[in-house]
Amino acid sequence: MAGIPIKFGILGCADIARKVSRAITLSPYSTLYAVGSRNVEKAAKFAKDNGFPASAKVYGSYDAVLDDPDVDAVYVPLPTSLHIKWAVLAAQKKKHLLLEKPVALNVKELDVILEACESSGLQFMDATMWMHHPRTAKMREFLNDSQRFGQLKSVQSVFTFAADPDFLENDIRVKPDLDALGALGDVGWYATRAIMWAADFELPRSVIALRGPVFNKAGVILSCGASLYWEDGKVATFHCSFLSNLTMDITAIGTKGSLHLHDFVIPLEEGKASFSTSVESGFTELVTGWVPKPSEHVVTTDLPQEAQMVKEFSRLVGSIKTEGAKPEKKWPTLSRKTQLILDAVKASIEKGFESVEVIS
Amino acid sequence: MAGIPIKFGILGCADIARKVSRAITLSPYSTLYAVGSRNVEKAAKFAKDNGFPASAKVYGSYDAVLDDPDVDAVYVPLPTSLHIKWAVLAAQKKKHLLLEKPVALNVKELDVILEACESSGLQFMDATMWMHHPRTAKMREFLNDSQRFGQLKSVQSVFTFAADPDFLENDIRVKPDLDALGALGDVGWYATRAIMWAADFELPRSVIALRGPVFNKAGVILSCGASLYWEDGKVATFHCSFLSNLTMDITAIGTKGSLHLHDFVIPLEEGKASFSTSVESGFTELVTGWVPKPSEHVVTTDLPQEAQMVKEFSRLVGSIKTEGAKPEKKWPTLSRKTQLILDAVKASIEKGFESVEVIS
Repeated sequence: MAGIPIKFGILGCADIARKVSRAITLSPYSTLYAVGSRNVEKAAKFAKDNGFPASAKVYGSYDAVLDDPDVDAVYVPLPTSLHIKWAVLAAQKKKHLLLEKPVALNVKELDVILEACESSGLQFMDATMWMHHPRTAKMREFLNDSQRFGQLKSVQSVFTFAADPDFLENDIRVKPDLDALGALGDVGWYATRAIMWAADFELPRSVIALRGPVFNKAGVILSCGASLYWEDGKVATFHCSFLSNLTMDITAIGTKGSLHLHDFVIPLEEGKASFSTSVESGFTELVTGWVPKPSEHVVTTDLPQEAQMVKEFSRLVGSIKTEGAKPEKKWPTLSRKTQLILDAVKASIEKGFESVEVIS
Repeated sequence: MAGIPIKFGILGCADIARKVSRAITLSPYSTLYAVGSRNVEKAAKFAKDNGFPASAKVYGSYDAVLDDPDVDAVYVPLPTSLHIKWAVLAAQKKKHLLLEKPVALNVKELDVILEACESSGLQFMDATMWMHHPRTAKMREFLNDSQRFGQLKSVQSVFTFAADPDFLENDIRVKPDLDALGALGDVGWYATRAIMWAADFELPRSVIALRGPVFNKAGVILSCGASLYWEDGKVATFHCSFLSNLTMDITAIGTKGSLHLHDFVIPLEEGKASFSTSVESGFTELVTGWVPKPSEHVVTTDLPQEAQMVKEFSRLVGSIKTEGAKPEKKWPTLSRKTQLILDAVKASIEKGFESVEVIS
């Protein structure tokens, strides 16, 4: 494909950018082209440590990356409060946008970003890596199978990890001026995305936050949860927290089948990942065992999920650049739906755990 | 032990009594002694089909079982609405009581039953079989381990099964005059017991039912859920239903460890059962895998869990009979706490999903 590889610029030297830099190198359609930091030495060290080619550009500002006409796309792992400024600037400079989650502080901000991308014909994608693992596609097949899974009735999702004292004191995710959504925007983004994914991105009618969210002194959420309700009677709950041992579960239950996995965000290992299903499960005659038993499914992958993400993003950008294709609307749509749920959970907490209608 | 084996009488020929009859036979401290049904031929057939010895008594009424002075203990699998009558009568006739769940329609009724047992020095136990599986004791060790599990922060439990059309039309569990608590009393009993067990039977401060419970035409619950809140910030949710594929999950998350199992009520197979734990889980350097990975634990058992239950019950009854021991209060206490939660969930549903205080 002409126009390939896609030349990536990275704004900032966040920890997560190391993993995405490797993914850009691993992906067949992309190359590390530039990195910018407010501190040029930091940018140079980042480029050196993360496999940037010798020809890569090292800039002392984010603006310089955006002003480089050869940068096709930018990966933006900046704190959420900076997304609206830099994502919109990137779009104005005609850069395709791979944006870290949570994509914005609220859907109003996100809509400004999406409008900026759309009006310039740019691809937008949030960096929710697990969406791109081939396991996720396999699980989707199961959930779509009316014979094996039937109709979705309930979903439970959990994402927690035990942040260390340094994180709880200093990480951007506990700072009201940086990632004001705290655990809801970080681990909660994944937990709500998991529910929306299981529901095939049908928006719930309403959301009610669970009681007892935990806040730090600055008022940032460290732990919370919610229940979600759909028109057809589907129910979901999630729990997310910085204060419990690492746990990442999806349980999706249909009329005929059930799906479980415990490592949906980061698979236990890179090259293969599994999930378990049960279909029309029943019991032995005296109800002393299961018939049939659940099945374990293993999905191997040549590229880690973050490289699958970069590959798909780069493929779309390549099509726009060389074939005049339109941006794929699926990705901004999924981001917006996830953000709508975060907004509703936050509103429900602020309203004393009232039911909040989800309005698209 | 003198006074052993304990002679069991069974009231009625419910399906579940077949499994418990086998358990009484398998247990070293008990023997099948009598069965009563309103239809004596049905009782005779039940005795013949379920391994009763030739010497066993076959009665044409429940009263006749209770009037037999040689019956030490009765197993009562009658519909819940009949528990108060027959459990109290049994206690008045000095029979120790193994009572099917849900033990009563509400805690007020249960208190009458428990008082009748206590005033006669009788052992009470509900027939929640999984409590007696050696796996449950192993899991308890993990949850009690402050080094590996830490402090419990959240619990999710699920018990659902897909009832067939005949069940949904005719089973006692969908009839308001028989098992008026419906799915809440049946699958919900296990899901709430799981939460209480994980919380080491510390009562929550409050309970809020999830929206969208499903009722049949007669007003019996077919599907519901709730969130539970403790003074120290612990949170739990459960979902129970007759309308989804068989699923039975406990997820318990502590500050340092996590516990998962997917067959807590009925293990996948009889002779061995497993659960998985993770302890102080973290990631590889680039966050592309888990370190350490979760561990799978397999627990084998010589006796199925229902026989373990009968064995423990019979051991306690034997101690009372022959050593003048006092009844073990643990078992009625656990039943009462579980019933308190069911009552609170039901009250919350009836009050339009308000928060209901749990008062012991």
